[in-house]
Amino acid sequence: MKHVYFDNAATTQIRDEVITSITEVMRENYGNASSSHSFGRSSKSLIEQSRKTIASYLNVSAGEIVFTSGGTEADNLVLRSAVRDLGVKHIVTSKIEHHAVLHTIEQLKNEYGISVSYVNLETNGHIDYLHLEALLQTESKTLVSLMHINNEIGNILDIERVANLCKANHVLFHSDAVQSVGHYKIDLQEVQVDFLAASAHKFHGPKGVGFAFIRKNSGLQPLILGGEQERGLRAGTESVHNITGIEVALKSTLNNLNKEADYIKSLKQYFIDKIAKDIPKAIFNGCSGDLDMSTYTLVNICLPIPPKKAAILLFQLDLKGIACSKGSACQSGSSQNSHVLTEILSDADLLKPSIRFSFSIYNTMEEVDYVVEVLKEFVE
Amino acid sequence: MKHVYFDNAATTQIRDEVITSITEVMRENYGNASSSHSFGRSSKSLIEQSRKTIASYLNVSAGEIVFTSGGTEADNLVLRSAVRDLGVKHIVTSKIEHHAVLHTIEQLKNEYGISVSYVNLETNGHIDYLHLEALLQTESKTLVSLMHINNEIGNILDIERVANLCKANHVLFHSDAVQSVGHYKIDLQEVQVDFLAASAHKFHGPKGVGFAFIRKNSGLQPLILGGEQERGLRAGTESVHNITGIEVALKSTLNNLNKEADYIKSLKQYFIDKIAKDIPKAIFNGCSGDLDMSTYTLVNICLPIPPKKAAILLFQLDLKGIACSKGSACQSGSSQNSHVLTEILSDADLLKPSIRFSFSIYNTMEEVDYVVEVLKEFVE
Ligand SMILES: Cc1ncc(COP(=O)(O)O)c(C=O)c1O
Ligand SMILES: Cc1ncc(COP(=O)(O)O)c(C=O)c1O
Repeated sequence: MKHVYFDNAATTQIRDEVITSITEVMRENYGNASSSHSFGRSSKSLIEQSRKTIASYLNVSAGEIVFTSGGTEADNLVLRSAVRDLGVKHIVTSKIEHHAVLHTIEQLKNEYGISVSYVNLETNGHIDYLHLEALLQTESKTLVSLMHINNEIGNILDIERVANLCKANHVLFHSDAVQSVGHYKIDLQEVQVDFLAASAHKFHGPKGVGFAFIRKNSGLQPLILGGEQERGLRAGTESVHNITGIEVALKSTLNNLNKEADYIKSLKQYFIDKIAKDIPKAIFNGCSGDLDMSTYTLVNICLPIPPKKAAILLFQLDLKGIACSKGSACQSGSSQNSHVLTEILSDADLLKPSIRFSFSIYNTMEEVDYVVEVLKEFVE
Repeated sequence: MKHVYFDNAATTQIRDEVITSITEVMRENYGNASSSHSFGRSSKSLIEQSRKTIASYLNVSAGEIVFTSGGTEADNLVLRSAVRDLGVKHIVTSKIEHHAVLHTIEQLKNEYGISVSYVNLETNGHIDYLHLEALLQTESKTLVSLMHINNEIGNILDIERVANLCKANHVLFHSDAVQSVGHYKIDLQEVQVDFLAASAHKFHGPKGVGFAFIRKNSGLQPLILGGEQERGLRAGTESVHNITGIEVALKSTLNNLNKEADYIKSLKQYFIDKIAKDIPKAIFNGCSGDLDMSTYTLVNICLPIPPKKAAILLFQLDLKGIACSKGSACQSGSSQNSHVLTEILSDADLLKPSIRFSFSIYNTMEEVDYVVEVLKEFVE
């Protein structure tokens, strides 16, 4: 049977060199990075090396990178401490953020009674920048949390514009960049975000490790308390092998970024062209049909498929060896519509099935051919 | 140069079969466990298999095991939610707990104004059970947090006695069992703790993964919010390879438990005998000189070494290839005395250096000989 993995926005295959390094570190460097003897120091130096690599990619200083167990924890760390320790009373976000952001904000609202504003969205899923600006005209201490690249529809936020807006209004800015770190060059000297979240497994690294960028002197306090690891910002014995894994994954990605991005872009373009030709009634959700306004790694398509067939579509695709998804992986078990699409699609389009196909360097044009052929069978 | 790793209470060497499985999982099972397609399902089934293995070791049901990024996170999860969601107003603990417990409780006291009682300690480091019982006579909703095995002095708590005391007084009981899980058989049907924390890297598993046991219907809520992973109790894409790692590590340990424990016990006994003979003025801190009352994995020795030599003792041992520690790893950088020893040693003994030596199956009698020979050089 064919196996086509088109769910790279959910997670990616780990690169061989990442697996090799992780394995080697587990074998050779088992010291606790907090121990002062030679075994400890060698683990410590691996971690600090990884921190430096990541910091230089983002053009920040190493002390501004805090390793976490993933993107979700990084989002939680930033948002919770902003409210608890920095006195944020008002959060501006959007209804199409990842649940790591939305659910955390909801909880903070219940716990601390902060107010939450949702910025208006265009029908293409872009935020209304003027509305955002209006929402920042407030006396309350405010934090904006808007993701860099949407994980379902791929829309790219003008993160520099938002950062400038926040700076001008003396407002803090956190960006969930889980779908962009490792896929795009990001210079945090140019883009003045205060906080940012990233996760290794979205760019061919291991699952269970990510980081928060926390700008110097922010005053943020830890979510997880105990030892003094991560300069007091994240307690717990460091996962040395996973941290090495995120470094090697990022390095590999960056060494080949242009070449690999071009390749994946060409796959996406091929997919778009093929759909336009073979299933002309399909609609690209959000900006995902536009290579300039959305990430090159995914498309999200609303398919002209009758409800009866739609109900078993994902199941049928799976039987044919095609891995893709309705929305974010953490919702994939549920029968509910994606909270993102609910915000931007018409009621009529919401009745049709929407599928996210997301790509990586390990995919091929032949796989696109196969998938579009299979999809055609379902279209009326 | 010789390399003697006697710091197994800080962390342990990963078993070969654990490394092999982790590597294989990274290569073969990269699906996101929340994805509904075949790639996702195979990751999911690995995780659920690990959960079952761990649950059956503890004689609990699989749904009561929540994977975390380690012992520290598990402690934080339980303690914070007990206060925030279960309405705990009073925590009873001891001054010799791990910082993952002590600092979290301190923070909860500041945030929620709960009251905290510290149970009295005997000079051997054991808790005063009568005082504990007296502390439970209160109208406030109370949680007891006492560790099963102390990571610095190795004292074993009579966890069943404490659990029964808590049950009789309608008080919740959390036990940090990071130093006992994987070293001792624990049956949670017999020992009625409500919550328990464990960490893989203390029993030859990978760093950055552990679990909380959370008894059914406890009402605990997540520390990290976002997706619905871990039945809603811990959001974030699961670290599939690390979770497999904890399972394989636990299995290996259990398959050989009696044989391996006997071997390590004999090492510890040999160490004790040798010290008694060669450095008779040395004192075993806590109960660590008594194999019945302390874990077989460590000794903590107060050495008759003058202050001048003491200051550079750890450094000198490191130069001679001996890895050991003053206390818990997360404090090893600091010049402060261990908070545990400060509670139980006399002022005079606190002026002398105390060192923890902790053992595993990878250690040998020859290593003990070497270490004691080296220690003798420092003794006056
Ligand atoms: C008793 C005890 N509790 C908690 C921890 C923390 O666990 P982890 O290192 O997995 O964060 C440790 C060791 O570091 C420990 O010895
Ligand atoms: C935009 C976004 N934020 C956060 C996350 C969560 O990151 P992690 O899986 O590392 O917890 C994901 C993916 O799962 C994501 O796509």
